[in-house]
Amino acid sequence: MGATGAVGEEMLKILGERRFPVDRLVLLASARSAGRKVAFGGRQLAVEELGEDSFKGMDLVLASAGGLISKKFAPHAVKAGAVVVDNTSAYRMDPAVPLVVPEINPADIQKHRGIIANPNCSTIIMLVPIWPIHQKNRIRRVLVATYQAASGAGAKAMKELEDQSRDVLEGRPPRKEIFPHQIAFNLFSHNSAVKDDGYNEEEIKMIQETKKIFHDGKIRVVATTVRVPVFRAHSEAIYLELSEKPDLGLIRKILEGAPGVKVVDDRRKNYFPMPLEASGQDDVLVGRLRLDVSSPKGICLFVSGDQLRKGAALNAVQIAEILCHCGER
Amino acid sequence: MGATGAVGEEMLKILGERRFPVDRLVLLASARSAGRKVAFGGRQLAVEELGEDSFKGMDLVLASAGGLISKKFAPHAVKAGAVVVDNTSAYRMDPAVPLVVPEINPADIQKHRGIIANPNCSTIIMLVPIWPIHQKNRIRRVLVATYQAASGAGAKAMKELEDQSRDVLEGRPPRKEIFPHQIAFNLFSHNSAVKDDGYNEEEIKMIQETKKIFHDGKIRVVATTVRVPVFRAHSEAIYLELSEKPDLGLIRKILEGAPGVKVVDDRRKNYFPMPLEASGQDDVLVGRLRLDVSSPKGICLFVSGDQLRKGAALNAVQIAEILCHCGER
Repeated sequence: MGATGAVGEEMLKILGERRFPVDRLVLLASARSAGRKVAFGGRQLAVEELGEDSFKGMDLVLASAGGLISKKFAPHAVKAGAVVVDNTSAYRMDPAVPLVVPEINPADIQKHRGIIANPNCSTIIMLVPIWPIHQKNRIRRVLVATYQAASGAGAKAMKELEDQSRDVLEGRPPRKEIFPHQIAFNLFSHNSAVKDDGYNEEEIKMIQETKKIFHDGKIRVVATTVRVPVFRAHSEAIYLELSEKPDLGLIRKILEGAPGVKVVDDRRKNYFPMPLEASGQDDVLVGRLRLDVSSPKGICLFVSGDQLRKGAALNAVQIAEILCHCGER
Repeated sequence: MGATGAVGEEMLKILGERRFPVDRLVLLASARSAGRKVAFGGRQLAVEELGEDSFKGMDLVLASAGGLISKKFAPHAVKAGAVVVDNTSAYRMDPAVPLVVPEINPADIQKHRGIIANPNCSTIIMLVPIWPIHQKNRIRRVLVATYQAASGAGAKAMKELEDQSRDVLEGRPPRKEIFPHQIAFNLFSHNSAVKDDGYNEEEIKMIQETKKIFHDGKIRVVATTVRVPVFRAHSEAIYLELSEKPDLGLIRKILEGAPGVKVVDDRRKNYFPMPLEASGQDDVLVGRLRLDVSSPKGICLFVSGDQLRKGAALNAVQIAEILCHCGER
């Protein structure tokens, strides 16, 4: 579901790369995209229009067509006997739906009743590197500021960044269609709705989903989410307050051995995580490891992770691999 | 000193705009720029080569040619009887040199012995909006993550952002000359030297200069500084821990009445500070005002300020205006 979107395209790529065992693949999208041909496994498949009857005989549905579409169609997929791995926010906070990052809470997958939710991209990219720290030295508080790529708003938003950049460089007024503000050579507070307390939906997701995935209702999280003129990887400046005085050498070792994480932290070369290098990679890059000079139990991190891969499509395929006991890793 | 750099050019513009009382203006720069003509007050002035004898008869020197140049030439200017307002980091932490943001500690100007230091741009942009809060409800701790424009690295860095963006859009490999990493459609940890504890010089400036300007050795500050593909305004996500439980309405009122600050905080329209709108403005834009859901005495802010104006040239000219009792405001 949502086969022709930015995440859908990445899902197809990852299913191929990881040789996911596919007997029959059906590409579902809106009527607008129906009939379009998409390459998979050396063949050209025609995109079909999504409908309530699309799910007959399906084992697995990967959904990434927006929250309203998932709300409407996931129940039909479940009724038809499929398991839905849903990349939208529709079911994430539903107590009956597991919310899973395979490196963190894979056992939750077994509790599903037909739907498993894939977390928000910024949440995944933040949690993969801090979970192994949390295991050794419980995190009490997380303060995060994000640097989010255009890809989080879809393929059209990436195109808008490209088109606007060209407009600015060539002296034309940039056209705004997807984002509410100019993204080229600018940045702005995340373009999700802002609630009465001043937090936007993206921030609320990071705060709430962290508690659910970590099974830790006490962990305190605050986030400031910002859209930046980068194509497809999110970065985050993270401050952690731990239970015990941190041993930075130990934390570095923990991160070096953690699944889904790559330490990029060369102080001499001033070489740390960058979205350009995180793009196309499965691992979340982590660096700028420092003791927090403002707090005796604090540490600082900077991370970059591919929003379309680990932040969305890869995480969903990893969940599917566990479901079918067919994972590469 | 440094008349042909990005900050020097902005200084000339601001001296003109604010009708700074100039009898004689001498534009000093390196031999490379000597002879170049620059417009000021309707006339064309030739840039002169900086030398030890450049300062005869001068009342005021605005210095922005790099720390080593200031170290070498500022003492000659002082010996010649001039007061130096130095925009480099050369003298900032010297206990004999006042470090001044006119909205915060103008009285320190009177303590000068010939040199007054202009703070780091990220420090100024952070402190102007948080100082009035500090006056009413003492700030105990500041956590900040920056989104810094190319202009902080000079005019050539701004040109590099432009050229690299064009290269990427036209499919050419982008050329790196000024920055260590690609800046177009990317971001990276600030390009200043990283010390043994993992902090870079920009972060150390923000930490140390805050204590000096606030005359508060107890205020704890931690910073993560990041360069983003924006031309000339810095943004910062700021978390504050206060002494007393904050009243957000009161803080908003304080900010609305504060000098050098403009509140941009429309939740319904998702309209908050953006570097594009801060560019060319004297005020630091502040918004995303929220109570910190992770801390009972915490608040969150997001600010954008023009790095070349309030972050550098404007602040220096404001200091000069106080020195000569000729300020517009």
